[in-house]
Amino acid sequence: MAKKNAFYAQSGGVTAVINASACGVIETARKHKDKIGKVYAGRNGIIGALTEDLIDTSKDSAKSIAALRHTPAGAFGSCRYKLKGLEENRAEYERLIEVFKAHNIGYFFYNGGGDSADTCYKISQLSEKMGYPVQAIHVPKTVDNDLPITDCCPGFGSVAKYVAVSTREASFDVDSMSKTSTKVFVLEVMGRHAGWIAAAGGLASDEDCDLPIVILFPEIPFNQKKFLAKVDAMVKKHGYCSVVVSEGVKGEDGKFLSDQGARDAFGHAQLGGAAPVIANMVKDALGYKYHWAVADYLQRAARHIASKTDVEQAYALGQAAVELALKGENAVMPAVVRTADKPYRWKIGVAPLAKVANVEKFMPRSFITRDGFGITEKCRTYLAPLIKGEDYPPYKNGLPQFVQLKNVAVAKKLPAFKV
Amino acid sequence: MAKKNAFYAQSGGVTAVINASACGVIETARKHKDKIGKVYAGRNGIIGALTEDLIDTSKDSAKSIAALRHTPAGAFGSCRYKLKGLEENRAEYERLIEVFKAHNIGYFFYNGGGDSADTCYKISQLSEKMGYPVQAIHVPKTVDNDLPITDCCPGFGSVAKYVAVSTREASFDVDSMSKTSTKVFVLEVMGRHAGWIAAAGGLASDEDCDLPIVILFPEIPFNQKKFLAKVDAMVKKHGYCSVVVSEGVKGEDGKFLSDQGARDAFGHAQLGGAAPVIANMVKDALGYKYHWAVADYLQRAARHIASKTDVEQAYALGQAAVELALKGENAVMPAVVRTADKPYRWKIGVAPLAKVANVEKFMPRSFITRDGFGITEKCRTYLAPLIKGEDYPPYKNGLPQFVQLKNVAVAKKLPAFKV
Repeated sequence: MAKKNAFYAQSGGVTAVINASACGVIETARKHKDKIGKVYAGRNGIIGALTEDLIDTSKDSAKSIAALRHTPAGAFGSCRYKLKGLEENRAEYERLIEVFKAHNIGYFFYNGGGDSADTCYKISQLSEKMGYPVQAIHVPKTVDNDLPITDCCPGFGSVAKYVAVSTREASFDVDSMSKTSTKVFVLEVMGRHAGWIAAAGGLASDEDCDLPIVILFPEIPFNQKKFLAKVDAMVKKHGYCSVVVSEGVKGEDGKFLSDQGARDAFGHAQLGGAAPVIANMVKDALGYKYHWAVADYLQRAARHIASKTDVEQAYALGQAAVELALKGENAVMPAVVRTADKPYRWKIGVAPLAKVANVEKFMPRSFITRDGFGITEKCRTYLAPLIKGEDYPPYKNGLPQFVQLKNVAVAKKLPAFKV
Repeated sequence: MAKKNAFYAQSGGVTAVINASACGVIETARKHKDKIGKVYAGRNGIIGALTEDLIDTSKDSAKSIAALRHTPAGAFGSCRYKLKGLEENRAEYERLIEVFKAHNIGYFFYNGGGDSADTCYKISQLSEKMGYPVQAIHVPKTVDNDLPITDCCPGFGSVAKYVAVSTREASFDVDSMSKTSTKVFVLEVMGRHAGWIAAAGGLASDEDCDLPIVILFPEIPFNQKKFLAKVDAMVKKHGYCSVVVSEGVKGEDGKFLSDQGARDAFGHAQLGGAAPVIANMVKDALGYKYHWAVADYLQRAARHIASKTDVEQAYALGQAAVELALKGENAVMPAVVRTADKPYRWKIGVAPLAKVANVEKFMPRSFITRDGFGITEKCRTYLAPLIKGEDYPPYKNGLPQFVQLKNVAVAKKLPAFKV
């Protein structure tokens, strides 16, 4: 096998552990210098490949690369840039392959969600046709946990842990205050289409620690009357209640709860979250004092409370991607395969990209309680191992020490290309 | 000294470490059984004393009491209930003293902020006059960090650490995405009057890790033009910018930024936060894509990322309160005294309650940069040690193990009293 360079890029919304996958890719490639030359990274994701803005990762030390394992977000930059279909925009795909050819790149590692799996698959196909075959391997990543085949997606376990821990902590807070003050706390979490992240709020309550938690899933159309009755019953029984609401919850009219047509004093649309809408609704109907929080980026960047399971899987999938490439695999994605629930065991399997691209995995109805406001034992069995274990970053002066790479540019060889 | 029981109550908004103070009080009292009988706690704070709803803390094991050290929020319940002035509501003060008398309580430990320091002081004075002298000791607590004399307030260091860590993590996230997506991230934090918590966001950027952060303090009237110019300059230089906004920021008209008169489709006031207002303003004026988060209770309940310094001080102040009582002190508050900045050293001092009650400590202007959007080196020197060290709670199955006490009620001896 002739020695080729590798290209790695991060795609879409970043996570607390996507750099752990990058670390797995780069460290494993460095162990196989006989077969893999340099690992180039795309500056700001696939845009870096299109514009030939490549980063030479060999300029960063082993120590810096190792520190990626505990550094959140995308160390090389990511982007939201979906390549169009082959027929509509063949030029972009051809440009990618030209860039790969110019830099002797034979391996393409693309770290992202469903869209990037699709891009990865197309590049594999087109490079073949263009006579410059590139082995394209997709490294799964998404806090949304909505990729098919793989048992879970790196990034999700850490968000889930953040949401479960935060919901438990905030519930203790509200419980303390409920006699004279706040009785309902609303936490808004990510998940525009699937309720996996909201479901993790349910883990806050378990056999050791019983807490009143109501979950609003995007899979269940919001029914205001049932919701208010549920909250009221919880408050009457426990004195308080925590609500975990997915940003993607829609009313029975199909409109996002967060889109309530609020206008500011100047008539501008007031883009709020679902949490304040829910909180105001509780206040208006039940009169309970509320507090609300919107976790937003904090949840997916929270490397300080990352799940050890998640970090290990993210690294292992990056490592496996390189090993698959060395075995000659193409158009595949390493995936997490669960082999046992209790105790949890997993291994790495392989999924063909043809079956991954553009398929979304939603919460099964059997994971949601009949009333639509909680998680079932089946869901708990699935989720619990994913948040297990702590993997604290190193600290200095009270702050986590994340690495900022040098990200040295590779000299360009081709004419400019406009994206 | 005749053996007396003690009464302990938690007041106002709870924190990640108020239970560490409770732990310090109870563990220290248990070491002095020759002088202090039982420690009773007020169920839901001072309301528990008024209604004679006392908790017998001796019914909880040493192990459970020790676990208070790593359990956030108020284990006995807190309340927002400010006793009125002596002249207006003498009956309540008299009732408190009757309850203390009925249960042979000679020590009153009140764990709270400025209002509770005032109550504590009045009880000391009145009990003397009523011929049943109670030694009243205030244990400081407030995330707002606005008590005078003490160098800092337990609860603040942990919120500050949460805000500093979260701001650093979210800044890494936004940096990754800024090429094609979010360029401005807004995090709203607590602090209705004083900007201490917002200031902690400034710690996210330091000599090891340079990050573009703009802070909005309640001490500085909001100037939209200057703010937008600052954000724009940051984005042009760094590609992105994080904004940490205190919930208490007011416009030059003296109105809270969060109170922008937004109305929902039904004409109801839409009570939002300052973060969405700021975010929309950036979008409208500069066109940058934004994300915003409101940390709310998550920040003050975040025991998982508590500051070790803060936990140690919270415990030490609870311990010192009991030791002061045993020395015969009355109407005082143990306080943190800073003896050195680098390396940070502190000891416990004593403050007379007459000088603590109803005094608020604001950020000195010298702690805020001239342009009003950042913290000075002086501020950094003050804040940095307060977030130092990690003090992780124990975990089981991926979740922190907090204690839920038995909170066994003490038999009532008096007629009911309406609050």
